[in-house]
Amino acid sequence: MSRTPLQDVAAERRHGTEHRTSVETVAEETPIALVYNGRPYAVMMATPADLDDFAVGFSLSEGIVTRADEIEVVDRLHTAHGISLQMLIPQRHYAAVDSRHRNLTGRTGCGLCGTDSLQNAIRPVRRVSISAQLDMATLLAGMSALEAAQPLNDQCGATHAAAFIHGQGQLLVREDVGRHNAIDKLVGAAARRGVRGDAMLVTSRASYEVVHKAAQADCPIVAAISAPTALAIRIANEAGITLAGFTRETRLTLYAGTLAETLETGAGITG
Amino acid sequence: MSRTPLQDVAAERRHGTEHRTSVETVAEETPIALVYNGRPYAVMMATPADLDDFAVGFSLSEGIVTRADEIEVVDRLHTAHGISLQMLIPQRHYAAVDSRHRNLTGRTGCGLCGTDSLQNAIRPVRRVSISAQLDMATLLAGMSALEAAQPLNDQCGATHAAAFIHGQGQLLVREDVGRHNAIDKLVGAAARRGVRGDAMLVTSRASYEVVHKAAQADCPIVAAISAPTALAIRIANEAGITLAGFTRETRLTLYAGTLAETLETGAGITG
Repeated sequence: MSRTPLQDVAAERRHGTEHRTSVETVAEETPIALVYNGRPYAVMMATPADLDDFAVGFSLSEGIVTRADEIEVVDRLHTAHGISLQMLIPQRHYAAVDSRHRNLTGRTGCGLCGTDSLQNAIRPVRRVSISAQLDMATLLAGMSALEAAQPLNDQCGATHAAAFIHGQGQLLVREDVGRHNAIDKLVGAAARRGVRGDAMLVTSRASYEVVHKAAQADCPIVAAISAPTALAIRIANEAGITLAGFTRETRLTLYAGTLAETLETGAGITG
Repeated sequence: MSRTPLQDVAAERRHGTEHRTSVETVAEETPIALVYNGRPYAVMMATPADLDDFAVGFSLSEGIVTRADEIEVVDRLHTAHGISLQMLIPQRHYAAVDSRHRNLTGRTGCGLCGTDSLQNAIRPVRRVSISAQLDMATLLAGMSALEAAQPLNDQCGATHAAAFIHGQGQLLVREDVGRHNAIDKLVGAAARRGVRGDAMLVTSRASYEVVHKAAQADCPIVAAISAPTALAIRIANEAGITLAGFTRETRLTLYAGTLAETLETGAGITG
């Protein structure tokens, strides 16, 4: 398995009757095992970049730890089959791995009845501690800045991006072939820097899991470039999250919550 | 949980400084439990439509059964937490559920070491039994027809579509909020009708799992509207599958395999 996020491959471009050989840059997709205190927890198909951010963000999203400093990535083992992220967490949190592990096992059907499995499928969402502080102009400026801040996607055209608007209009961006992995990497990168996201931007639709991960990161706004699902809207209302879809150029559609009134001087966004 | 694939929700459209309330149609996303002979196997987040197709296609993709007539959907239980698809399979295949179940458990970390989990993450791919028979013009015509054959997406803008080109240029289409579910529904719908796909079209990128599911369905061509991943290309080469990306209007990029030479009379596509 490759250790780099991008690969060059031989290909052939065809346009009408014209054929020409080409070298194309494509995104890598690698099995990444997440292992806590020596115990395997899950394997995700992800882009092999920003793996320490991924380890921390995945652990926060899953509720295994609550702070970045409670987790230490002690090794990144590259094998023929993928990459194993070996993490150490305090013993008091290891119980959560054990208990969540039982839930995951339940979901894949280990002696629990179907109803129990379904009950475990949607985890309870927590309410965010603050309400939406940004205005529409800032979200639109952020989405516009995000379009110009995707180095992997510029080269391969196959990665999703997730970003936090934070501080005085700064943008923190992470990319991955999986949109949920991009969010986990973002959440991890923010937590490791002590940054708090005022809004999460995603270059995809807003599914249940996108909103759930935003709630877990205590982020009060989710703005997607495309549509939300009905379940994502219900979860947003439950979590007190403002949810916008079709956030493009000069418009958006608000599905849950509110935004701050537009300021006279719209905040700029800096990479 | 809702039983219908679409929901109408109250929203607010904002364009510049104009605000107006609106009713938006959004896609439902529901936990669907797949239960074999009373034993839960997995829960997928999916659009509640074409569930019998989904049950059959998921089972074929996972290799639990090899033919549609080996599976019977005996009940669809709607609960507060989702929908449980109760299936009956022959006892000789139930062993596969047991063994795959152990693999799935391994993936989520049940006493196996990290390396074992990674080894199980990528399942062996099987070689398709026939080579690519279609030409580029037919793939482009199919993708163009697919764009006009997505009734759910037309209403909600949030579903992926997967299609088979089969027979004399017919198109079979299924939609879902999850692109992998759309493929499973398509595979199930085809198997239940005794239809064999000559090419699979997807309105997304081509990940490892897209190509793996095509191989499992013995379909020799995958054409995606966007880019493939490096792993998808390797799996396509291993399976003998022709893999095209950026299949749009008059062009495509060929990443693996070949296509038939363009015929004088390009085949038309019928819905």
